[in-house]
Order: sequence, then structure tokens, then C-alpha cells
Amino acid sequence: MAGGKRTAAEQTGEIRGGAAEQGSDPALGAPEQPGALLRAAGPRVLAWAADYLEHVRELPVLAQVQPGDIRRALPEQAPEEGESFERVLADLDRILLPGVTHWQHPRYFAYFATSAAEEGVLAEMLAAALNSVAILWRTSPASTELEAVTCAWVADLLGLPAGWHGHIEDSASTSTLAAVVAARAATGRDLVVCSDQAHSSVEKAARMVGMRVRKVASDASFRMDPGQLGDLDEAACVVATVGTTATTSVDPVPAVADACAAAGAWLHVDAAYAGTAIVCPEFRWAFAGVDRADTVVVNAHKWMLTPMDCSLLFCSRPSDLRAAFSLIPEYLRTPDAEDALSLSEYGPALGRRFRSLKLWAVLRCHGRRGLQEHVRRGVALAAAFEQWVEADPDWELCAPRPFSVVCFRRRGFSDEQNRALLDRVNSSGEVFLSGTVLRGSFVLRLAVGQYWTTKEDVVTAWDVLRREAAQLAQS
Amino acid sequence: MAGGKRTAAEQTGEIRGGAAEQGSDPALGAPEQPGALLRAAGPRVLAWAADYLEHVRELPVLAQVQPGDIRRALPEQAPEEGESFERVLADLDRILLPGVTHWQHPRYFAYFATSAAEEGVLAEMLAAALNSVAILWRTSPASTELEAVTCAWVADLLGLPAGWHGHIEDSASTSTLAAVVAARAATGRDLVVCSDQAHSSVEKAARMVGMRVRKVASDASFRMDPGQLGDLDEAACVVATVGTTATTSVDPVPAVADACAAAGAWLHVDAAYAGTAIVCPEFRWAFAGVDRADTVVVNAHKWMLTPMDCSLLFCSRPSDLRAAFSLIPEYLRTPDAEDALSLSEYGPALGRRFRSLKLWAVLRCHGRRGLQEHVRRGVALAAAFEQWVEADPDWELCAPRPFSVVCFRRRGFSDEQNRALLDRVNSSGEVFLSGTVLRGSFVLRLAVGQYWTTKEDVVTAWDVLRREAAQLAQS
Repeated sequence: MAGGKRTAAEQTGEIRGGAAEQGSDPALGAPEQPGALLRAAGPRVLAWAADYLEHVRELPVLAQVQPGDIRRALPEQAPEEGESFERVLADLDRILLPGVTHWQHPRYFAYFATSAAEEGVLAEMLAAALNSVAILWRTSPASTELEAVTCAWVADLLGLPAGWHGHIEDSASTSTLAAVVAARAATGRDLVVCSDQAHSSVEKAARMVGMRVRKVASDASFRMDPGQLGDLDEAACVVATVGTTATTSVDPVPAVADACAAAGAWLHVDAAYAGTAIVCPEFRWAFAGVDRADTVVVNAHKWMLTPMDCSLLFCSRPSDLRAAFSLIPEYLRTPDAEDALSLSEYGPALGRRFRSLKLWAVLRCHGRRGLQEHVRRGVALAAAFEQWVEADPDWELCAPRPFSVVCFRRRGFSDEQNRALLDRVNSSGEVFLSGTVLRGSFVLRLAVGQYWTTKEDVVTAWDVLRREAAQLAQS
Repeated sequence: MAGGKRTAAEQTGEIRGGAAEQGSDPALGAPEQPGALLRAAGPRVLAWAADYLEHVRELPVLAQVQPGDIRRALPEQAPEEGESFERVLADLDRILLPGVTHWQHPRYFAYFATSAAEEGVLAEMLAAALNSVAILWRTSPASTELEAVTCAWVADLLGLPAGWHGHIEDSASTSTLAAVVAARAATGRDLVVCSDQAHSSVEKAARMVGMRVRKVASDASFRMDPGQLGDLDEAACVVATVGTTATTSVDPVPAVADACAAAGAWLHVDAAYAGTAIVCPEFRWAFAGVDRADTVVVNAHKWMLTPMDCSLLFCSRPSDLRAAFSLIPEYLRTPDAEDALSLSEYGPALGRRFRSLKLWAVLRCHGRRGLQEHVRRGVALAAAFEQWVEADPDWELCAPRPFSVVCFRRRGFSDEQNRALLDRVNSSGEVFLSGTVLRGSFVLRLAVGQYWTTKEDVVTAWDVLRREAAQLAQS
């Protein structure tokens, strides 16, 4: 959009909230000049966000508040009259910021470390300004088609076969829910099979829709053991994971695909985290057999630099997915409904945000090479940390490391002591790690993936771990 | 955040995409300075968004493209090397904008007209910059507690009883899905009952989870007829609607609540659109009996000025909701899990965006009075339009108008002619309306709700309708 002059009031930077000070005849006119608040308050908001990213590494990674602290600092009611946006920004600093666990912090190493690249942040504002709601194709042609195109781009980056359907859900929980619903509709069966390392969302989805779950034992490297799959005659769906949540192990998808094909079961591949790594040729091995899947989920908001939320669901059987979800009532029937893609027919939601805009911005501004460098940086940092652990007799590795997550523990410490160690480390605010239980034993996890993490940040994590372990050993 | 100096490169406004031009050792350093792109490209993005809102009324409301036009204008693959953000902005203008149906356009009158107020747009950027992921309380205390607080604010604005649980889902489809899942878990039954005017998401949710649906006939004013509810002994859930999608009719919630209480069925109230109107005392009647509901959904992204997506789900039986969705695996178990609220235990998703930030910004900057003025403006404009239709013998009203939606048709036109009329009106680009079928007859709908809609915009809609009807009558 070209043009646009500022009024004097805007140039003074006066920040005013909407309607409260208007007092206009409600039946006659609209409120303030459209765009005025963006011009007046926007520069300060931009500066806040830029300063936040520049200085976030000076803040404690894990929020140092107690449950209820934030809630008690906020009023119990919405204000009667509108306030200025400046007060919102001030309270963001004063009240909310201390309660933020900083996912954008370079020393965030918990769960799966994620990042919102700045291109994605800017695109998210544009998406909010456009406020498209993709119900049918015609209510949002650009967002619908860009969603299909960006998903095709990612499919291509990951080497998935051409021509698969792709769309974006909010989270892998929803993508997996959609997959099991489609699997049930396509097979008429109600059993979901996954390994004991599968993400909790599989069990949650099955429970939501009233399907049974059978968990298959994993092998010594935490991979699904296809020999344990057993009889799949009642299986609607087998969920294989490429990059499990605890250890990022990779299930043997080719063997699972064989078993699914023999039994007529739907194969859903959960690659929510590790899918991004497949942009690098050296990790392409982990997607062997995934071309035979019925559905695959890859979260761009995990390792692909895209802000929350952006979970990509790919499907090689789009007509089965559509059959499970399409339900166009008369009041949504439009002349073009037969020709045009309406993504609401492929998943649970009717109204859908313009989520593809941020993904598009990230893919364009980073390119294949930028994503590869980001993945390789994370993997190299995790590999370095792994070597330090391995070389230190006081510590032990607890699982193979295919990607950027290291599972380890202090040797000689009980589970309770390792849990206490994790608490101390996280309470320091210097780093934030998470833990998990493997074969009944508590282990710590260091997950690299934040965009701005440097080697020094990983060194700090190692230093803090050893310092706190030493103090714990003495106490 | 205070401070933050610009580099010379930033001050020249040079816009660079991330990693492509870095060439740094992937194992050693992070990419560019955090915040640099926000400073360099942000002002231009802000200006784009402000100019867009200022000039959107000059664009055709409904995108004037054909299916596939946008897709074909985009490359088939992601770029190899990162590009500048400037090129993304240029392509947004050149390729995507013609494919945008403008929900922010003052003459958007289709479905339910919505708006993203500028406070919400700015807050959405802040949420993306923070990139919080609320899995457990500790991963995002601020977003978790602000979500509870803002939901409590809205509950208070709508006169819901104090102490109800509230959280935010992406869409009413998901909120209703969560409600029926909880209803089944709480009752052990699998029948969902709603009126023939209920939103399609009820049927979609039931189908997803394998529940049956019974549709109850509505009365002459399109309200559920409680006398038709029949035997509810097998009903897990009755869905009553306050503001149906076709006509915004209001089901008799008190009578439905009586029937639910007698039968032990869960009462879910769908107030996705009309819930916002309840901020005005004169519309409080429409929430009579809603205090007896088990769950209520109100979409802040519909009439409450909040950008997509922000669907509020309230529940008077939080322990039943939690019982249906809580499934904390060991690797997510934390020391504070017993004390602190984790909203992922109350709905389908595990990872959740910081959606409450934009709602908070809107509620604070508009206040109760600003929301009331916005609702009253929309209702007054719809009432004016209704009067023009009623006074013109060539036209007829087709349903009562409780809020800001008018159902009408050209008298003497067949269904086919009224459909053709709607097509002509929308193809003009001057306004965008939708249609529906009532009792087998096609009718047009004018939905007022866009923040910047003026009386002149509604006059234009009426002028375009009469002009196109006259031309159609002649042809």
C-alpha cells in the first residue's frame, strides 16, 4: 500500500486507545481514523519487540514467579473506559514480563527449543492486520492458496512425493487428532497403535474420539520394535515417530509401513520436531519410508523458525481426509465451492487464520540454505555438549542422539538427586532444561534449537550443570 | 525493554533476510544481531499495515480472482538462498493482495462481520516476538494467568457467574468439540441434541468423535422448540444457540436448561457471535438461563474486536473438563504441576499460543464502554437497514432481527433470482454479503459488525442491492 500521511497528533506519538474518547453518535460514524494507532503506537511497540530480542539473554530463562503472582497483580475486571496502549505496554513490562518463560532466550534448552524468527514476527502482524478468516476459498483465496503453496514448498524441502495435500493446524495435537479421525473414517476400525515413546497427543486424541490405544514396546534405542506390532487387523492407525519427544529416536518407518500395508491400517508419522532436519541431506535417512505414510505432521513452529502456531499436516490420501471432515451446510454453499479448495473441509476447524503468511516469510527470507544452517548449528552444538558429557566420568549419556537433543544424567546420583539437580539448574535462571524418564530412570535433556544460541550458551549450560551437581554432592 | 541502539546499516533501512548472507561457522555463532530486522524492516511493515487499513475501503471487498490464480503466480519451490523481507512485502502487494477478501473492509457484510482492532494487531506482534508456548504453567506463567484473567474479565462483562473456568481455543469449532468430548466423558452417553439452526460445527464435532446427532425443529422464529426436545435420557449434551448463524435467533435457554437438568445432560451454549452483545444491558435478556450452562463459547474474534483466532470457552464444571482432557505424561511432570494451572489439561491442544495478549489489549484500550459502543453501532446500522427493507414493497424481511444481522429477499424473485442477485452484488466488489436457506427458501443476509463501517457504507449496500435487482429484473 502506498501513501498515507500522518496527522500532527500521530507525529507527536500520542498513543490513544480506540473508542472511549470518541463520543460519536453510535449510529452514524466509525471510530478513529483507520491506521492511526498503528502509526502512533506502532514504532514504540516495534522498539519494544526489538529491544526484547536484543536483551532477552540478560533475563532469567525460566520465569521466577510463583503460581498466582501474575493473576494477583492484575485487576479483577476490565476497565470501564478505554485506556491508552501505552499503559498496556507499561504493564507488559511491569506485570507480565517477570512471568514470561523466555522461549526466545538463547539458553532455552527445555522440551524442544523453538524460535520465532523476526520475519515471522513481522508477518504475524501483517496477518493480524489483514485478519483473513478462511472458511471457504472465496472468503480468503490468498491465505488458502498460499497455505497450499507453502505446504508444497515444505513437502519439497523434505523430499515428500509431489502432489500430497498439505494444510496448517495450530498444533501437532490437532494434526494427529485429524489423522486418527481420518483413519477411523477410512478403515471403520477404532484401534490406534503407537510405541511407548509416542507423544502424549496420540493417547489424548484417541481418548477424545473414543478410540483404543495399544502401545508397542520400543527397543534399546527407544525405537518402535516392528516385531512387537502384533496383529493389526483391528488397527485403524499406526503412529510412527521420527524424532520422539524424550530422546528424538526414529521409529523404523519402512517396516511399519509394510505392516500397515499388509493390515490395511493408516500410517501416521509424527515428525513434529525432527521433520525440519530433513531439509539437510545428511538427515534424509530419517524419512526413509515416510513417502508411504497416509499422514505426516511437521511443526514449522518447532525447528523451522516460524512463530507459534504452525503445524503442517500432509496427507497422501486427500479424498479420505476430506471425507472425514467435509460438511458444508447450505448457508456456506457458494457457486465456486465445487472448484475451489476450502481447507476447512480437511480438518476440525471452520474459521482458519492466515497462518501461512509467517511460514512464507520465513521460507523466503531464510531459504533452503538458511534452514539447513540453522539445523546444522543446533546439531553441532548438541554434538559438542554430548562429547563433553561423554568425556566426563561423573556423567553419562542415556540415549543415542540423532539430532539436537542430548539425554544424560549425573552418574552416581539417584533419580531424586538428578531431579533436584534439574530444579537447581533451572532455578538459577541461567539456563532452562527439562527432564524425562527412560526405562524407569530419570534423565536430563538438553535440547538445542533456539536461533540465537551460541557455543558460549551451551558452555554455560555445562558449567551450570557441573557447578550445581558439585554443590548438590556436597550438601 | 529500554535502550537499544541502531547500527548504521539499520538506519539506512536496509532490509535483510536472516542467515543467507552470514556464512558464519555453523557450530560457533548465532546469526545476525537479534532485533536488527525488526528495526530495519519493521517501520515499513507498520506503514504497510497502517496504509492498508486506511485505504482498504478503496479495494473490492470480495477478491476478484479465480481459483488457482494466486497459486500459479507463486514459485513451485522455496528459494535456495534467503531473500530480503522487502521482496516479501512487494509480493504481498503484487501477488497476494488481489486474492484477499477484505474482512477489514467497512463494507464487509457477509457471514459474521468481524474486525481486528489495531490494539489487537500490535499485541499479536508482541505475542509472536515473545513466542511463548503454554504447555504447562511453568513454560508460560504470564500467558496462562493472563488467559485466565482475561476470560474472567469477559465472563464478568457478560454477567456469567463468578468462578467459572475460562480458556481460549482457536475457533468455536474447537470449543464445541471440547464441550461435547467433556459431555460424553461426564455422562457416558453419546447423543448430541441441537436445533436445526445450530452451527455446522456441532455436527462436525459429533462426527469427529463418533457421537450421534439429533436435530430438533425450530419454531417460526428459528428458535429451538423445547417441546420438541423429546426424551433426553440418552443425551450427553444439548447445544443451545444464542445467536444462530443464519438468523441470530436465540434459543430459549431457560427451558432447555430445565430439560437438561431433568435428564442429566450437559448444556453447551453456542454464543460465538452474539455473546459480545451481552456487554450491553439491553441485550442481557439473551443470556437468560446461560448461568445454568455447563459450557459456553464466545468468540472474541467475531464481534469483540480481537484478531483471529480467539474463541473463549467457559465451563461451570472445570473438574469435568479437566478429567476429559488431562493426560500428563512423565516427561511433562514438573514440581509445580499440582499447584499451577496448565490450560493444556482443559482442551485438545498441548502447545498453546499467547492468545490472551491481544484480547487483553483490546479489552483495556476499548473498555466496557468501547465494546458497548461498537455493539450498539452495529445494531443501530442493522436496524436502519431493516427499516429500509421493511418500507420498500419490492423487498421483504425473512426473520426477526435480534442483533446486527438482517435476513431479507427481493419480493417476487425466485430463489434462483435471489441467488443471482447476491452473485451480482458481490461481483461488483462494492459490498460483500452472504446468503442462507430458511425453510427451503433462499434469503440474503446483511451482517454488520466491522469496526469501521459507517452509515454511508450501509446505504451503499442498499443502493447496490436495489440497483442490481432492478437490472436483474430487466434482463
